[in-house]
Amino acid sequence: MTDGLSAPPAVGGGRLSLVPLGGVGEIGRNLMAVECNDDIVVVDAGLMFPEQEMLGIDLVIPDITWLLDRAQRVRGIVLTHGHEDHIGGLPYILPRLPVPVYGTSLTLGFLRSKLKEHGLLDATETHVVRPGDTVQLGGIAVEWIHTTHSIPDACALALHTALGTIVHSGDFKLDHTPINGEPPNLARLARLGDEGVLLLLSDSTNAESEGITPSERTVGEGLSPIFSSSPGRILMATFASNISRLQQAFDCAEAHGRRSLVVGRSMLNNVTTAQELGFLRVAGGSLIWPRQLDGLTPDKVLIVCTGAQGEPLSALTRIAAGEHPIVQLQRGDTVIISANPIPGNEELVHRTINNLYRQGSRVFHSSRHKVHASGHASREELKLLMTLVRPRYFVPVHGEYRHLAIHSELAKAVGIPAERVLPIDNGTIIEVDAEGIRRTTLRAPAGYVYVDGLEIEEAGDVVLRDRRHLAQDGVLIVVLTVERSTGMVVGGPDLVSRGFIDESSTESLFDEARAHVLELVSRLRPDSEWSVWQAAIHEGLARFLYRRTHRRPMILPVITEV
Amino acid sequence: MTDGLSAPPAVGGGRLSLVPLGGVGEIGRNLMAVECNDDIVVVDAGLMFPEQEMLGIDLVIPDITWLLDRAQRVRGIVLTHGHEDHIGGLPYILPRLPVPVYGTSLTLGFLRSKLKEHGLLDATETHVVRPGDTVQLGGIAVEWIHTTHSIPDACALALHTALGTIVHSGDFKLDHTPINGEPPNLARLARLGDEGVLLLLSDSTNAESEGITPSERTVGEGLSPIFSSSPGRILMATFASNISRLQQAFDCAEAHGRRSLVVGRSMLNNVTTAQELGFLRVAGGSLIWPRQLDGLTPDKVLIVCTGAQGEPLSALTRIAAGEHPIVQLQRGDTVIISANPIPGNEELVHRTINNLYRQGSRVFHSSRHKVHASGHASREELKLLMTLVRPRYFVPVHGEYRHLAIHSELAKAVGIPAERVLPIDNGTIIEVDAEGIRRTTLRAPAGYVYVDGLEIEEAGDVVLRDRRHLAQDGVLIVVLTVERSTGMVVGGPDLVSRGFIDESSTESLFDEARAHVLELVSRLRPDSEWSVWQAAIHEGLARFLYRRTHRRPMILPVITEV
Repeated sequence: MTDGLSAPPAVGGGRLSLVPLGGVGEIGRNLMAVECNDDIVVVDAGLMFPEQEMLGIDLVIPDITWLLDRAQRVRGIVLTHGHEDHIGGLPYILPRLPVPVYGTSLTLGFLRSKLKEHGLLDATETHVVRPGDTVQLGGIAVEWIHTTHSIPDACALALHTALGTIVHSGDFKLDHTPINGEPPNLARLARLGDEGVLLLLSDSTNAESEGITPSERTVGEGLSPIFSSSPGRILMATFASNISRLQQAFDCAEAHGRRSLVVGRSMLNNVTTAQELGFLRVAGGSLIWPRQLDGLTPDKVLIVCTGAQGEPLSALTRIAAGEHPIVQLQRGDTVIISANPIPGNEELVHRTINNLYRQGSRVFHSSRHKVHASGHASREELKLLMTLVRPRYFVPVHGEYRHLAIHSELAKAVGIPAERVLPIDNGTIIEVDAEGIRRTTLRAPAGYVYVDGLEIEEAGDVVLRDRRHLAQDGVLIVVLTVERSTGMVVGGPDLVSRGFIDESSTESLFDEARAHVLELVSRLRPDSEWSVWQAAIHEGLARFLYRRTHRRPMILPVITEV
Repeated sequence: MTDGLSAPPAVGGGRLSLVPLGGVGEIGRNLMAVECNDDIVVVDAGLMFPEQEMLGIDLVIPDITWLLDRAQRVRGIVLTHGHEDHIGGLPYILPRLPVPVYGTSLTLGFLRSKLKEHGLLDATETHVVRPGDTVQLGGIAVEWIHTTHSIPDACALALHTALGTIVHSGDFKLDHTPINGEPPNLARLARLGDEGVLLLLSDSTNAESEGITPSERTVGEGLSPIFSSSPGRILMATFASNISRLQQAFDCAEAHGRRSLVVGRSMLNNVTTAQELGFLRVAGGSLIWPRQLDGLTPDKVLIVCTGAQGEPLSALTRIAAGEHPIVQLQRGDTVIISANPIPGNEELVHRTINNLYRQGSRVFHSSRHKVHASGHASREELKLLMTLVRPRYFVPVHGEYRHLAIHSELAKAVGIPAERVLPIDNGTIIEVDAEGIRRTTLRAPAGYVYVDGLEIEEAGDVVLRDRRHLAQDGVLIVVLTVERSTGMVVGGPDLVSRGFIDESSTESLFDEARAHVLELVSRLRPDSEWSVWQAAIHEGLARFLYRRTHRRPMILPVITEV
């Protein structure tokens, strides 16, 4: 991109800031705040699923402290599409930041069932927009632009501000033959480029993938021969929100004389919502209930289910393990896993596939067969978007840091000058004005906020550190009853351990440990603080146990005074 | 393969059994026992690294109960090559099963440094064999046949028994242009096929990969342009045992005027051993010590290090995180990750790559660049081995169950009749005699044996289950001091929790919980067993806490009697 093609510097007065509170430098919980003078608009508010070492955590959401400090200026939350990592944070965020939410029909359809579960539906102001619509939020006009992704009704956004136009790609690929709806509105993106785009934020997920992401339609072409050649039942697992994938599965089933059973709560919910809103068309009688299964021969059945990521409690995982209440595998069943493992889930997915083979199933999965297409643009599409939009500044979003770095290289390769390309991490505030673009030294709080049971914790680090310690070598409790007046041990020491060492090994070890504890406390002055007693027991016993077992359980001395 | 090509049924009298105690249906800790009449030979004895949910476990080794019950008949352990998953179990197994060990020069070189660390060197009888050698172990003659793999001096084995010849592929690929030593001895394998092979056991790792695995030499071809175009230092991480990879890195460095620093204890050890045994040739002065780094400009330096799998304590991981004592990243550094992530390690590897990009490094890794080649045969090579060896029976080994299943399909595709192909899991005993091959109903104990600190545990399941529980929601200890004679609570209840809930939330919750415990025990008869008290506290408190927090900590009631 030569300088002649790119937009002029920011015009108009004032200050424009980008405040990423999630989704850059990590996967998931996307949330980008755009601040222009007095107005703040939030793009998406997703969640992420916990990483391996976030033990016992249910979900992770963005830290919205920065927004809460400016709540009076937040004009609304605008959504690009209905995936969990873009809308899943809202049930936790809206109670603290009750602002209007804007999105397309299916996006809000999925959001509304979520809000209903959390009892937030009535309290939330939601507005359905259509692609092409523009909504004025304070001084920022937000325009929805139709794109294509692995969920229907996905949009890019153009945020028209006093300083210029920001284009946010949302999650996208350029699918010219989508299953549902129109191809992406490239014409509008090109026109925006003509008018001048100040800043492009673009999806970096597949910045490592060469070429072009295959059309969703190629999946149907891959499914068809499998349907033709399967003698028994077909089970197909995919993402519950991939309505176009489900549409193709149902169509394929119909073409091959099979009726379809949907298994898994989230998938059933989504099928219902998508049907009601007209995003999924199924011929009458094609979908069946579990009790109708018995009346059909295996070659007349398709079972569509959740579990394509090997999630422990999902339908396919339980089916593969022989533990599902409704579906038991039969010899001759064919199983299609129509998804790629999300990084980190490989082991779980492989375990499911191993179990399927053990049960004698034929298995088709994306690493060997054309049964999946990504929803994210590959390198040639990313370049195309840049050359259409011709932004003055470029900030890669939606990806781990390596994706952002590689996407940045790509931006430079198409001619955006290096000093106008800014890969950033969550919490780094970017400022744009007539002078240029820059990372500021200001940082917004953007750490992990954990949802753990009923709690939302911004500082769960101690709890997690303790869980990691407990997970490693278990816990040992030392209970001692001491007569305060004399400092005499009148009860115990009793030792209770869990997760430390096999019970068969503990008896003589614990006898010695008890003697060691008595020996340790005998050296203390009887009028010492209990904390001194505890520290002495902790330190001495830890050393003794490491020497004997090479393990370091968490040691908890409890002293009861009588 | 038509029946005319395959070997005749088993001849000779007696009974031949295959007893897989590791390495089939899983990755790692390979151990296959071959029993023919009175003699048992063990092929390999590896370890595996713990899976995600094996919390706190250091290593996992095979269960050798079946062998210990027949220890008098075990004639020796024969090794195919020197990788951890084939030799790493020996330091734990040999003290309980002290039998002679046979292997090639480099294999035993790596084993001997391991035995030395464990103080087992003098107590172990080791015999170096050369490819082509045959060793008579009771009635079984074991022949080593040179192959190629990602470690030099790797071999297939032919076990000549009274009932016929078993060929065990070891881990292999067919590399016609290896870096170190000869191409695989296909001629000998073909001759064995001519003579008649009863059973082939073959490496299934890459049974999903189409085509042919690239030669190790292609990696050098991929490294060269990176070395030419790197202005600063080059850091390269790879497997410490991949001597041919190291050879190519050192050669490339020399060709580009760079001197090489080796970082990481295991890599330093292996480089020393391989040099001593003549498997690694480095020009005098090419290898440098850390203190020589300062005297060299960045373009004169190659740093080769461990950490290609993102292992938390390895050199590259610490370098990427800015926490390495010797190597700090500099702007302009180029980092090459010359390995594929082992399944399950993807998240760790990605985290390392993200950190490298954050520090401004240029990064080359195997998913985008030709800087790695697998050590395992792809589908065309697997087929070639079968058509050379023409076995009567086929048992896939070395892989997760899906690899075995897919490898079995391949065997049928080249013409081995389905009833002569037997994918199995660990512990399934296979019998061969003049009648044919069959899975027996006998099972050998083949579960996980955990190495955890100094303990080797065959039944660590309770400990692990407790660790998983503790990892999920932490622990809550309830301490109560009770006067036995009256059943009166004279001390406590004291509550201590770790990993359960943020401390700021506990105060009022714990006040209520304490009252609840007193209320619970007030309903008990004072002369009840303590176990009844504990059960009542456990159950009542669990219900109370779940209602209030939606968490389920491990609750440990401790009652001290005075």
